[in-house]
Amino acid sequence: MSLFQEQVKFLKKKLKFAARENSSHTTLINIKGYNISSEKHSDNFTVMAGPCAIESQEQILTIAKYLSSKNVPILRGGAFKPRTSPYSFQGLGIKGLEYMQEAASTYGMLSVSEVMDSMDVEVVSNYVDILQIGARNMQNYSLLKTVGKTNKPILLKRHFAATYEEFLLAAEYILSHGNPNVILCERGIRTFESLTRNTLDLAAVPILQQVTHLPIITDPSHGTGIKEIIPAMTVASKAIGANGVIIEVHSDPENSLSDKEQALSFQEFDYIIKSIL
Amino acid sequence: MSLFQEQVKFLKKKLKFAARENSSHTTLINIKGYNISSEKHSDNFTVMAGPCAIESQEQILTIAKYLSSKNVPILRGGAFKPRTSPYSFQGLGIKGLEYMQEAASTYGMLSVSEVMDSMDVEVVSNYVDILQIGARNMQNYSLLKTVGKTNKPILLKRHFAATYEEFLLAAEYILSHGNPNVILCERGIRTFESLTRNTLDLAAVPILQQVTHLPIITDPSHGTGIKEIIPAMTVASKAIGANGVIIEVHSDPENSLSDKEQALSFQEFDYIIKSIL
Amino acid sequence: MSLFQEQVKFLKKKLKFAARENSSHTTLINIKGYNISSEKHSDNFTVMAGPCAIESQEQILTIAKYLSSKNVPILRGGAFKPRTSPYSFQGLGIKGLEYMQEAASTYGMLSVSEVMDSMDVEVVSNYVDILQIGARNMQNYSLLKTVGKTNKPILLKRHFAATYEEFLLAAEYILSHGNPNVILCERGIRTFESLTRNTLDLAAVPILQQVTHLPIITDPSHGTGIKEIIPAMTVASKAIGANGVIIEVHSDPENSLSDKEQALSFQEFDYIIKSIL
Amino acid sequence: MSLFQEQVKFLKKKLKFAARENSSHTTLINIKGYNISSEKHSDNFTVMAGPCAIESQEQILTIAKYLSSKNVPILRGGAFKPRTSPYSFQGLGIKGLEYMQEAASTYGMLSVSEVMDSMDVEVVSNYVDILQIGARNMQNYSLLKTVGKTNKPILLKRHFAATYEEFLLAAEYILSHGNPNVILCERGIRTFESLTRNTLDLAAVPILQQVTHLPIITDPSHGTGIKEIIPAMTVASKAIGANGVIIEVHSDPENSLSDKEQALSFQEFDYIIKSIL
Repeated sequence: MSLFQEQVKFLKKKLKFAARENSSHTTLINIKGYNISSEKHSDNFTVMAGPCAIESQEQILTIAKYLSSKNVPILRGGAFKPRTSPYSFQGLGIKGLEYMQEAASTYGMLSVSEVMDSMDVEVVSNYVDILQIGARNMQNYSLLKTVGKTNKPILLKRHFAATYEEFLLAAEYILSHGNPNVILCERGIRTFESLTRNTLDLAAVPILQQVTHLPIITDPSHGTGIKEIIPAMTVASKAIGANGVIIEVHSDPENSLSDKEQALSFQEFDYIIKSIL
Repeated sequence: MSLFQEQVKFLKKKLKFAARENSSHTTLINIKGYNISSEKHSDNFTVMAGPCAIESQEQILTIAKYLSSKNVPILRGGAFKPRTSPYSFQGLGIKGLEYMQEAASTYGMLSVSEVMDSMDVEVVSNYVDILQIGARNMQNYSLLKTVGKTNKPILLKRHFAATYEEFLLAAEYILSHGNPNVILCERGIRTFESLTRNTLDLAAVPILQQVTHLPIITDPSHGTGIKEIIPAMTVASKAIGANGVIIEVHSDPENSLSDKEQALSFQEFDYIIKSIL
Repeated sequence: MSLFQEQVKFLKKKLKFAARENSSHTTLINIKGYNISSEKHSDNFTVMAGPCAIESQEQILTIAKYLSSKNVPILRGGAFKPRTSPYSFQGLGIKGLEYMQEAASTYGMLSVSEVMDSMDVEVVSNYVDILQIGARNMQNYSLLKTVGKTNKPILLKRHFAATYEEFLLAAEYILSHGNPNVILCERGIRTFESLTRNTLDLAAVPILQQVTHLPIITDPSHGTGIKEIIPAMTVASKAIGANGVIIEVHSDPENSLSDKEQALSFQEFDYIIKSIL
Repeated sequence: MSLFQEQVKFLKKKLKFAARENSSHTTLINIKGYNISSEKHSDNFTVMAGPCAIESQEQILTIAKYLSSKNVPILRGGAFKPRTSPYSFQGLGIKGLEYMQEAASTYGMLSVSEVMDSMDVEVVSNYVDILQIGARNMQNYSLLKTVGKTNKPILLKRHFAATYEEFLLAAEYILSHGNPNVILCERGIRTFESLTRNTLDLAAVPILQQVTHLPIITDPSHGTGIKEIIPAMTVASKAIGANGVIIEVHSDPENSLSDKEQALSFQEFDYIIKSIL
């Protein structure tokens, strides 16, 4: 048994629910008829896309219209935003979720949005199909326990300083509280390199797939912070066997209220869609 | 103007409340008559000590009795524990806080304990004198806003992957919501070195002191994870101008339910107390 | 102009020789008739493979025979080994290079081996087709200057703690001393994650391609240290547009004198060759 | 036995010469009558100071005159400079060493300067009392072996990405080749924090002291890159039990040809000297 196989075995022992029992053990998450599976290299490569923040009714409708025309199944958009500064735009809150729900409904899309506090879990659940736990809250254990008691699928992002073990144990918090539908998301780790916003750790995909039966997607937008590099990282994510990607797209990237450097225009996103078909 | 002075100026501009206006600008936090000041090298070097987790009434009483005999003014102890695994001891909760309140009261000490969820802020405030925001929740902005609306002093720990700017902006969240009493705590950052649990970044002390008027303490226990090194890091923290330390002490370290490797025995703690007097 | 484009421009200004002048500016390195080009997604994906260390005449002959049967054009193997401990196997030195030269010659392969000291550059050049500068010597400027004065192609590995800028400036040392034939190699960076030996930074490929006209390959063996993950990282390297890979293969991995955990068997390597064809 | 004690034992087993046999095992390095000892908190706190680079005869004479007036025993100055860019000032080479030798001799000081290539070891040894191995060459094993065969004391700097184990094994390379006189230098490690040039890892001092009998100094100049912070880091280095410091001082910091942001003026250095007496 190789050292890695021993480490995988050691990690699995810490997990009651997230551990992969055997090589054919995969998970299928059914969201209103749309399936996200942890099967590798299936035809089902899930694209989630949309703006960093929901900024207005018009903005999210425009983006949803475009994305649905490209057959993107899941609309992303932040209503409660975890901003580093208290003086940055904090998101539209419930009003934003209303806009998003309308946009998703109008264009037949599913939706995903971040919830930042256990007090908000119930209300956010009323508006979206998938609850996102952001990287900064990956070890907010109260929040993990709370979403673990809901029946909504959870998109759990890896903290930018979390080890694989810590990431898996965060998922285990959710699973052990009753919710089996967790999608893992590698979104870049913090390293010494400062040209990129983060270093997208693509090795996380095959490594986590050895340990867990949960689906794994990547976030090339936060994982690099550089829109010029997002297409290459998306293609590599698919090639390595990820089950999908989540990408920031904006109808007017120049005037985006947040994450301007990593928001793709419709034209730039077109290029990605073509390259992964 | 040196590059550093420009960076300090740049950081200060992002802060409305935390920025230090001039070299004599310090803050004094009065907690039931005990003062924590941000003045450097004052006689007032604050020691906070106690177990990682409150484990029983007897345990916390024994520890408080010992610490008060050494004139330690502030008792620490966790009741709600942010544990990496859902299967680790999660703390005694409210029962633990009751034990702590009794111990602190019996031995004339102040108390500090972590709050992990905005829903718990009110209840925890009923039992302790200082609310701790743990490293993993440093960017839990809902929690920061909630404790910003209380009148309790806040001990804010730096996340192990947070830059100075992110740390200061987390403090700014609290200050900007109305609570002026924030104590910063450098508790080690995550680096490639794996012999230590974290790398205690002592440069944070003089650097943060240039930018902010808030008091700054260090946590040599989490900052190293090695009890043999804690005395040296404590002495260095005082020498560099920190306003205090927070240290894990246990009546029976061998049988500690958490953080066993960094818990000091009474005898080991005696040595520290002597070295910083 | 995006922030990234400004950063690329800023980096290019520091480089007189390595900077890419325009999108069609590529470099072709001709090694005895075999071409390594920096053109993206060309058919010419170069595979370099072989043992970590040359251990015996028989070992390197066996490996070369196998690799040539798979049409691998370039044989790798260490004769001067940069080992962390002075008590580890330091390589066979000149004797090893003799074995390698014979093996490469017998099976019609090109060869690459590391040179660790400017004093050895001349002698190593007599035996191999490509001189490798190892990660630990990426900022050994005397060595860079010396190989910059040879006419051998140089395989320059990124140090595990080097920024993109430092990596490119190391290449610039070689180029500015007269040698235009430099192949860059991303081989993983050191991060907090300890399950992997390094974190292979695949974003380095598209980012460096924006700045420089030099070919770029990756090293999935050192980049992960986990043989089970090397196939996935190889496929991703090709998908992202790298010009090749360098992989450790051993005729008897279990008894390899170094890097045992990342050495692939012939059977495991077969699988990779099939997946990238 | 604590986990740390086990780790110390494990590390010691890898070291034949550098391992500390017992708590009273210290090393005294006698350099022309001046002693550097690894004894903790002795009166003998060694200050090495001088410019980053020797720039002219006048410059080094002026600085040596000043430093000797402050009883600084050892003059530092670079003649062969490891510069990130080939287009930066590379040092005066042998001419610089001549200037330095004259300055040290005139003012009764000892001298230390970096050697970057095994070919230069003999010639540099003719001019200086202590040979410095820079951080970037810490794993240049050819160089380590070569200086291991000289009879000059070696100042070995920790690479900014080296673990304690790798640092100690680099020292072991020198010791095992016959040279017992190695002084370790912690000079900061590379982390995600970009406000500082490096993060000075002061815990390295007490940790390394548990494992090895060699003297340990720190480099607050490279360890922070911020002249405003150097005094605090120097005081903390002494408090934690380091055997000395090496600090960059310049007669005209504004016009320094390298490391401008961390070069102290005479006036700023005065303040440090007073604070550690």
